[in-house]
Amino acid sequence: MSIYLHDIPLDQAQQVFLAALTQAGLHQVLGTEVIDLTEQALDRVLADPIWARLSSPHYNASAMDGFAVRSADTIGASETKPLLLRRSGQFSYVDTGDPVPVWANAVIPIELVDGLDLNEQLLNDPRHAQFIRIRAAVTPWKHVRTVGEDIIASQLVLPSGHLLNPADLGAIAASGHSKVTVNRKPVVSIIPTGTELIQIGEPVKPGDIIEYNSMVLASQVLRWGGIPKRKPIVADDLKLIRSAVEEAAQTSDLILLNAGSSAGSEDFSAEIVRQLGTLLVHGVAVRPGHPVILGMIHLSNRSLPIIGVPGFPVSAALTGEIFVKPLLERWLGRTTEEPQTISASITRKITSPAGDDDYLRVVIGKVDGEYKAAPISRGAGVITSLVKADGIAVIPRSIQGLEAGSKLSVRLYHPVSQIDNAILVIGSHDMTLDLLAQYLHRYNRHLVSSNVGSVGGLIALSRGEAHLAGSHLLDPSTGEYNVSYLPQYLADEPVKLVVWAEREQGLMVPHGNPKQINSLPDLLRDDVTFINRQKGSGTRMLLDYHLKKEGLSAELIRGYQQEEFTHLNVAVAVASQRADCGLGIAAAADALQLDFIPLFNERYDLVIPCRHLRDGLLDPIFKLMNDEPFRREIGKLKGYSFERMGEIIIGCNE
Amino acid sequence: MSIYLHDIPLDQAQQVFLAALTQAGLHQVLGTEVIDLTEQALDRVLADPIWARLSSPHYNASAMDGFAVRSADTIGASETKPLLLRRSGQFSYVDTGDPVPVWANAVIPIELVDGLDLNEQLLNDPRHAQFIRIRAAVTPWKHVRTVGEDIIASQLVLPSGHLLNPADLGAIAASGHSKVTVNRKPVVSIIPTGTELIQIGEPVKPGDIIEYNSMVLASQVLRWGGIPKRKPIVADDLKLIRSAVEEAAQTSDLILLNAGSSAGSEDFSAEIVRQLGTLLVHGVAVRPGHPVILGMIHLSNRSLPIIGVPGFPVSAALTGEIFVKPLLERWLGRTTEEPQTISASITRKITSPAGDDDYLRVVIGKVDGEYKAAPISRGAGVITSLVKADGIAVIPRSIQGLEAGSKLSVRLYHPVSQIDNAILVIGSHDMTLDLLAQYLHRYNRHLVSSNVGSVGGLIALSRGEAHLAGSHLLDPSTGEYNVSYLPQYLADEPVKLVVWAEREQGLMVPHGNPKQINSLPDLLRDDVTFINRQKGSGTRMLLDYHLKKEGLSAELIRGYQQEEFTHLNVAVAVASQRADCGLGIAAAADALQLDFIPLFNERYDLVIPCRHLRDGLLDPIFKLMNDEPFRREIGKLKGYSFERMGEIIIGCNE
Repeated sequence: MSIYLHDIPLDQAQQVFLAALTQAGLHQVLGTEVIDLTEQALDRVLADPIWARLSSPHYNASAMDGFAVRSADTIGASETKPLLLRRSGQFSYVDTGDPVPVWANAVIPIELVDGLDLNEQLLNDPRHAQFIRIRAAVTPWKHVRTVGEDIIASQLVLPSGHLLNPADLGAIAASGHSKVTVNRKPVVSIIPTGTELIQIGEPVKPGDIIEYNSMVLASQVLRWGGIPKRKPIVADDLKLIRSAVEEAAQTSDLILLNAGSSAGSEDFSAEIVRQLGTLLVHGVAVRPGHPVILGMIHLSNRSLPIIGVPGFPVSAALTGEIFVKPLLERWLGRTTEEPQTISASITRKITSPAGDDDYLRVVIGKVDGEYKAAPISRGAGVITSLVKADGIAVIPRSIQGLEAGSKLSVRLYHPVSQIDNAILVIGSHDMTLDLLAQYLHRYNRHLVSSNVGSVGGLIALSRGEAHLAGSHLLDPSTGEYNVSYLPQYLADEPVKLVVWAEREQGLMVPHGNPKQINSLPDLLRDDVTFINRQKGSGTRMLLDYHLKKEGLSAELIRGYQQEEFTHLNVAVAVASQRADCGLGIAAAADALQLDFIPLFNERYDLVIPCRHLRDGLLDPIFKLMNDEPFRREIGKLKGYSFERMGEIIIGCNE
Repeated sequence: MSIYLHDIPLDQAQQVFLAALTQAGLHQVLGTEVIDLTEQALDRVLADPIWARLSSPHYNASAMDGFAVRSADTIGASETKPLLLRRSGQFSYVDTGDPVPVWANAVIPIELVDGLDLNEQLLNDPRHAQFIRIRAAVTPWKHVRTVGEDIIASQLVLPSGHLLNPADLGAIAASGHSKVTVNRKPVVSIIPTGTELIQIGEPVKPGDIIEYNSMVLASQVLRWGGIPKRKPIVADDLKLIRSAVEEAAQTSDLILLNAGSSAGSEDFSAEIVRQLGTLLVHGVAVRPGHPVILGMIHLSNRSLPIIGVPGFPVSAALTGEIFVKPLLERWLGRTTEEPQTISASITRKITSPAGDDDYLRVVIGKVDGEYKAAPISRGAGVITSLVKADGIAVIPRSIQGLEAGSKLSVRLYHPVSQIDNAILVIGSHDMTLDLLAQYLHRYNRHLVSSNVGSVGGLIALSRGEAHLAGSHLLDPSTGEYNVSYLPQYLADEPVKLVVWAEREQGLMVPHGNPKQINSLPDLLRDDVTFINRQKGSGTRMLLDYHLKKEGLSAELIRGYQQEEFTHLNVAVAVASQRADCGLGIAAAADALQLDFIPLFNERYDLVIPCRHLRDGLLDPIFKLMNDEPFRREIGKLKGYSFERMGEIIIGCNE
């Protein structure tokens, strides 16, 4: 068992890997195949250039419905002085696309012709005329698509290495081909290992881990043009895993061996790579993704690369992006599309481990014309950090941290247009914001929320880090919400203050309330552990206000120092027995099937700097406040009243 | 038979169509389906939001390999003052991902622990220790992924309408789902009609048109997320086409009826739509694409839209983009991705018909830091105009033309990074540039060429419209090439002049030289029709120089006024019997299987303003001049000598 991984810098790991691939001849397109020219050739990469076999058009073709004529015969014809041509030798009817006879060199459109019968009487349908009266002259080759107008036989139609688009397929057909030689798709086998793994859809018990990394990796491989093969889960047994790898090697171009690559007791991946080939790299200095393994497996007739993919889902997905994507691009002959990047200022200070390239997931919004990047959870296990991320910023290993406001270059996952439609909401968390996000999607708006408590939200607004904040700050002297706090945090900033909801706050306790906690004084009991909200949050202020009012000492509450950042997280702490109770809203208790002891009512407002109301970005929020289906849906949540939703406490003067 | 189409403006056509779709309830997502959660769900659109059924982690999980402990038991432990814990009740070994026992609330990583046996002797493997010596204290919940760290049951994971990415699939699985409800894919039937149509791969004779529009449309439908069904070719027979439409209607959401929509003799589409439902629009004021038909087909239990797609390939593909793409986006609930646009100045004056929205295909390059858009062939039959196009600019129907240098907004087909790597070469055409394009692709360079003749190329360079020009201008007084023309056209512009090739110019005549044309004097014969190159081209100058030298009068040459713009087009004119001979290079004659009568030798140079050599864009061209495989490949072309390739006639002073 090796406890310490040999971490080498990312660029060095990539070099070592590429050198081994080059030695095995696997640094370039893997091979080619000939396929029929159909719509299935879309997005394939040409292995050979397409040289035209046929001109297009391959004959002189009429470009109009009309009459093929000799240009010379039409000289002098005009509206006022039409000319008469005879059927024998002077004209011939042609539809669009018909060949122009060899004796003709122009076409007169049917609209400029009268058809006459043998007696020179006007015909309804001039197509079978014996004579035609033409009302215009035509120059040579007018309304004729001459041979090769589009493509000339022998010309280069498309170079090798070209990614085929719809119109390309048409051009290849037009130039006389019915097959194309394209680069072969690499086969990537994905082997999940781990005794604790269960399949998606199986019943779940503590300790079970739902195996979805192989699906995420497979979908990445699909997107990048490869053929993924998901293999069954293999238990933590060196021999079993080794057999699975040996078997997959026979039919694969690349093996992704998932999990088992940390230095823990189930670390067989490195050993298997050593046994079956060459272990190149064990541990790369990237975060998340550290325990990546890179190696080559040697078969009797060829070698193939194997990547030990870390088990944490964010590490697994990033390993795909960092190591699998470039390899597939190389094998498919696809040019790497540089990801779009934007420069954004980071909203809070971050520290980053020295020596590691740190892949920081961020959400981005445009506030006051500037892109602001808010870092999201950095845990390797937090798959939702990838779901929510608008992009990734790489903090190079030479940098140990960044101050708030520093500029970052962010590689975007989403188009800039989507980021420009992001609404950044900060401050106190409320579950109804999830529903708002869901409905805003229909208006092409993306609600991005950070939970930093009510006061944190007002501070963030003052720093221009968000478009609006949710706040429920009680003024102990007046009993009024939010109004008196604005001068303190947003002195020079005119804001709109609008009621979002009124909600019950109360104690969340396990189902059946086993410890019979029913009032604030119960929190001081020796057998009761409380879980608190963070300083600056409205809930914390509400608690402190009422503790003081009832003359109770916070110091006597066990767990008062232990803080969570959202109502739901407090509910989770109670549900998972980390605490006996916490203060929060009914909806959160409901979501986790906890009992709820209502104590107080409070108002939750939206605080919106007036300057953010000018460009229409936030308009859909106000539309939804009056939208019946939305109000009906939100009204189903327990412990809320939406009677006053939309009521303006402070307006903007415009 | 109706000759005149009822052309209405595009926005009006779209409104009429949308109104009819809305009336039939077809203006929104068509329906949903439940599919298994696998990698095949990639790129599908969620019909329902995903609310978490399960928290993730769904238990308190160790985040490290190490020992689960009570935080309180570890207080005071340090490197210098380790603490001893006993197996019974004080620690328990856990791998990463294992559940943390209920009595524990923290994990100490294995690296910070020594394992001891019953006699307090150090063990190699601490996992089965009876005692452990811990060298650090841990705070509560340190190295524990608590329940819901990633996802809390009941939370919104993804909103409806979301397009599924790889990480999303993982998050859905983690939140306890094994199926997803997604928007159903629309089925689009494509019916090609036309007696003149043949299938891809069939032998071709004059008048035959290779049917590839259905493939282009099918690949568009695939790319936009629909299910294309290509139907067999139907002959021009109203009853047959009607049956095909009726049959397809039973199993389709949309029918694309291709060709037959012009006002010609095979115009059955409008009639069939009238018979089976409602003809909404017959002709839209867009270029290309005029004869589009929009209608609804009424079945006993439902209606469905039908689009009569024009037969010319560019019109067909643009009809897909203009009418089919938005419909599929609507039906799939995909948000329209705004195409990236850039502002570019147009390189030459264009006229545009009043009353039509004109879809102008352009190639784009960055010259002197500014994007320049060069319009390419505007023919509706020229599919290669879509292949070559970097983007499309719409000239609105209110504008009848644009002066050279006007700014255009161009919707890009390619990423800006590709456009930034485009090399614009202008001037005289040479076939070896096709081969150069092919090889440059490997260096991530895209050669975009415009053929305007040698003098046109020099003028374009002086206007900053290209990076380099190909030129073979003979000075009649010195017999030298190009040098003496530079002061006239590029007076203030230091340029590099480098030899590309020497080539034979001669007469291209049909195989066997039936009219025995062997010298310049033969061109004056009464039975000989010549095809000329345009004024300003090097070949034209060469001809005029030698005519004068031999005392021959250009006026006596039949066809002297008839001009083509490239060597290959001259060859095509001879091959298609539009002329008996033309002056050009051997390679062009060879490509069209013509005989070649060599007359003169000439030098073809590259002219490169020195300022374009500074940013490395053109470096690969110079690399290739010395690249053995390239020189070998190019050396196979008949009538060229590449001995002097790369020789510098005029250098840049840097």
